[in-house]
Amino acid sequence: MTVTMEVCLDDVRAAHERIRAWIRRTPVLTSERLDTESGASLYFKCEGLQEIGAFKARGASNALLSLAPAALAAGVVTHSSGNHGAAVAWAARKRGVAARIVMPRNSSRAKLEAVRSFGGEVVLCEPTQKAREAAAAELVARTGAEFIHPYDDPRVIAGQGTLALELLEQQPRLDVLLLPVGGGGLASGIAVAVKALSPDTRVIGVEPAGADDAKRSFDSGVLTTLAQPNTQADGLRAALSERTFRLMRRYVDEVVTVSEESLVPAMRALWRSLHVLVEISSAVPYAALLERQLSLSGKRVAVVLTGGNVDLDALPWVVATTPAGASSPPR
Amino acid sequence: MTVTMEVCLDDVRAAHERIRAWIRRTPVLTSERLDTESGASLYFKCEGLQEIGAFKARGASNALLSLAPAALAAGVVTHSSGNHGAAVAWAARKRGVAARIVMPRNSSRAKLEAVRSFGGEVVLCEPTQKAREAAAAELVARTGAEFIHPYDDPRVIAGQGTLALELLEQQPRLDVLLLPVGGGGLASGIAVAVKALSPDTRVIGVEPAGADDAKRSFDSGVLTTLAQPNTQADGLRAALSERTFRLMRRYVDEVVTVSEESLVPAMRALWRSLHVLVEISSAVPYAALLERQLSLSGKRVAVVLTGGNVDLDALPWVVATTPAGASSPPR
Repeated sequence: MTVTMEVCLDDVRAAHERIRAWIRRTPVLTSERLDTESGASLYFKCEGLQEIGAFKARGASNALLSLAPAALAAGVVTHSSGNHGAAVAWAARKRGVAARIVMPRNSSRAKLEAVRSFGGEVVLCEPTQKAREAAAAELVARTGAEFIHPYDDPRVIAGQGTLALELLEQQPRLDVLLLPVGGGGLASGIAVAVKALSPDTRVIGVEPAGADDAKRSFDSGVLTTLAQPNTQADGLRAALSERTFRLMRRYVDEVVTVSEESLVPAMRALWRSLHVLVEISSAVPYAALLERQLSLSGKRVAVVLTGGNVDLDALPWVVATTPAGASSPPR
Repeated sequence: MTVTMEVCLDDVRAAHERIRAWIRRTPVLTSERLDTESGASLYFKCEGLQEIGAFKARGASNALLSLAPAALAAGVVTHSSGNHGAAVAWAARKRGVAARIVMPRNSSRAKLEAVRSFGGEVVLCEPTQKAREAAAAELVARTGAEFIHPYDDPRVIAGQGTLALELLEQQPRLDVLLLPVGGGGLASGIAVAVKALSPDTRVIGVEPAGADDAKRSFDSGVLTTLAQPNTQADGLRAALSERTFRLMRRYVDEVVTVSEESLVPAMRALWRSLHVLVEISSAVPYAALLERQLSLSGKRVAVVLTGGNVDLDALPWVVATTPAGASSPPR
């Protein structure tokens, strides 16, 4: 498969055919209580119920299944401190090839263990964006492995977009779709599919205020990156790429931010009423509902719950109550 | 509706028609990792995703919807320290009638709050079986309200059995079905339906060894109750009734017990691989798989995950590590 610069509905459809046997058609849940509290009809797409606990299974599956055996002979490489690493390790094992995952030294034990449990080889590096990119590039150069970027890759973007195909089958009439924005792979892929199939559905990206590079880029029209994102939502610290920024500008309607203080209440509200425990990063779109900053009364609103890889021994409200000054925002 | 002594497939089917609009058709999840670890093909029916977080929504819905308006004029009463109370409160509110829930004084804040959040009126009593039964009887005598027993009620039993109708539609070929046994309402209802529709499917009840009244009753043929059940699995401390014992003897194939030490590992394994957080009582059937006491290799095995009302601020392994002697088994 040629790596093209853009992604269209046909790519997403082809991805869905390709990965259908590997991924789960995750359920869409509703909650009478959350509907009452929000005044909207909410549809929660529960991607935490993928085998690896996150939507990243989609993009990684599509990348692995797009590659010809010859291209896979030397295995695959990626860098990730989170779910993409586990997803690539899992998909590579299903494809029968080796996966090396570059991860920062300070990754949590749970995340390192997840990658290894799917058969991935962890390669540790210093905890900077530069160091992880350099380590991955060095591995690719030395081994000839195929690099699978966490989001700046049309195969990954098209794979993430398959979520929207399922969601629109499960709930065809949607006024609004809320999703979290990190590097923009999910937002791009979903928006491409939604705007082709249901153009009147507003696609709204949500970011924590401490990692608002997409919001700044969107508002200014110029791709903007932050020197140091500052948020508990570790899955959303990544910066947009030129590619995801371009796709988002074309297909996403709006980007809004939520305050850091809303994230734990959103995570807890989802657990209390939906009985689904999501990562703090995955609580971000619901935080926008809690903050009531969007006019959603009476609307049919889909909320993408991206992942459920929560470390039960380090719940964010427990971490948050350690003595002040003990550390910078938890990873 | 006349309260008959027995329950048959037609009752379960009628219940399903009655409650269909109120309850969720909960998903059946699979896990490559748990299949590999167990050597079986496992199908997890996730009842924690009901609106109230447990299968008890089924029985309570059927009871409330079976009653004529005249019978409901004075509302409903039940006693429960757990999910049945929340289910009755929720179903009563949907039916537009009052619910009074007798609960022991030492119920957790989370459980009291759950009942109240669904509009139920909590009536506190001493924490004994006798006290709660007396308090409920007194309320019924004084108010004329309808009593809805947590399990010794054919309407409740038939309602719980609807889970099996869905499961057999979602996964028609099952060699074995594992479910937890408390008072036997779920086990009775499910076994009635399964033995009528899929007689070759073995229905196996699982109990914690510290609350093995069903196992003892099953093995001896005589209904046996324990003076003091001793298990963390608070949802399974109830004793069989004559009715549920009779139904279980006729339709359940076997009852096995698991050791207390397997419960937390089972709960954690389900969370790690399935990304579903279940109550400690709901981890009991999977504990039987972990203990490898059943020959399930190569079999198609359904596991009923009954509920997901976990208090994240009192996870059982955290409670379990409080200083020795600090308390008897946590409630």
